[in-house]
Amino acid sequence: MSIRDLNKEECGELLERLGFGRLGCARHNQPYVVPFYFAYEPNHLFGFSTTGQKVEWMRNNPLVCVEADEVVGHDNWTSVLVFGRYEELTSDPKDKALRQHAHSLLAKRIGWWQLAIVTSQTRKERFGPFPLFYCIHIEKMTGHRGSPDQKK
Amino acid sequence: MSIRDLNKEECGELLERLGFGRLGCARHNQPYVVPFYFAYEPNHLFGFSTTGQKVEWMRNNPLVCVEADEVVGHDNWTSVLVFGRYEELTSDPKDKALRQHAHSLLAKRIGWWQLAIVTSQTRKERFGPFPLFYCIHIEKMTGHRGSPDQKK
Repeated sequence: MSIRDLNKEECGELLERLGFGRLGCARHNQPYVVPFYFAYEPNHLFGFSTTGQKVEWMRNNPLVCVEADEVVGHDNWTSVLVFGRYEELTSDPKDKALRQHAHSLLAKRIGWWQLAIVTSQTRKERFGPFPLFYCIHIEKMTGHRGSPDQKK
Repeated sequence: MSIRDLNKEECGELLERLGFGRLGCARHNQPYVVPFYFAYEPNHLFGFSTTGQKVEWMRNNPLVCVEADEVVGHDNWTSVLVFGRYEELTSDPKDKALRQHAHSLLAKRIGWWQLAIVTSQTRKERFGPFPLFYCIHIEKMTGHRGSPDQKK
């Protein structure tokens, strides 16, 4: 197997196509990793959530890491890593345009609204303002692809 | 879709079967998430690695989070979350038994040794003592399963 770096465009293509990955946040140096759905556009990821531990942690510490991968086999895989900064898109008028933009991008994955609602209900949390939209500002993005060695 | 909690045995079964997930660590409250392969046994996960950022960070802060999931569809998925503590299994005689135990469990996934070697070579890192084995002591483990609603 050989491994090569992905360029920025290739990283973006994978993120746009998958729209699914794992979001890592941290509090008091305790990491927390959850699967999540997102919409990618250059320099940003948009997500939505109900309130809960993930959101509480990111409100206190906006440093996040997103990992997305596609594993076909042990010698045939692609992974992308994003370091970024969480910003909540509030109901404040100043966030209105970006919130609507996030909404339009995420509307393609409408089935997942159901997931967020049911998750909230199952956890018996206060339902709160739903959905909560957020933006992850991408500060660093890297990717790798592992490919089988060519037969000689 | 309905969501229910998994019990400890169900969480263990998923971890044992998948043997693959995402490992989150943190430094100065910056989370870092990487895909990784592991072997599960009750109360422990065993992994191996070359030296690198992940290992450096866990040496400095042993608090980790592991997420593993199986997604069949948006309303049919299982996920398990582990909070635990990293312990490196050194070449010291005191670690010998546990290191051999980790080796025997991980030997079933021998193809992944190749991945770790190639990754190390590709990154042009110092090769270092290979492989480096570690144990994650599971301190908390939770899981959820989402299932389609039954038709009435």
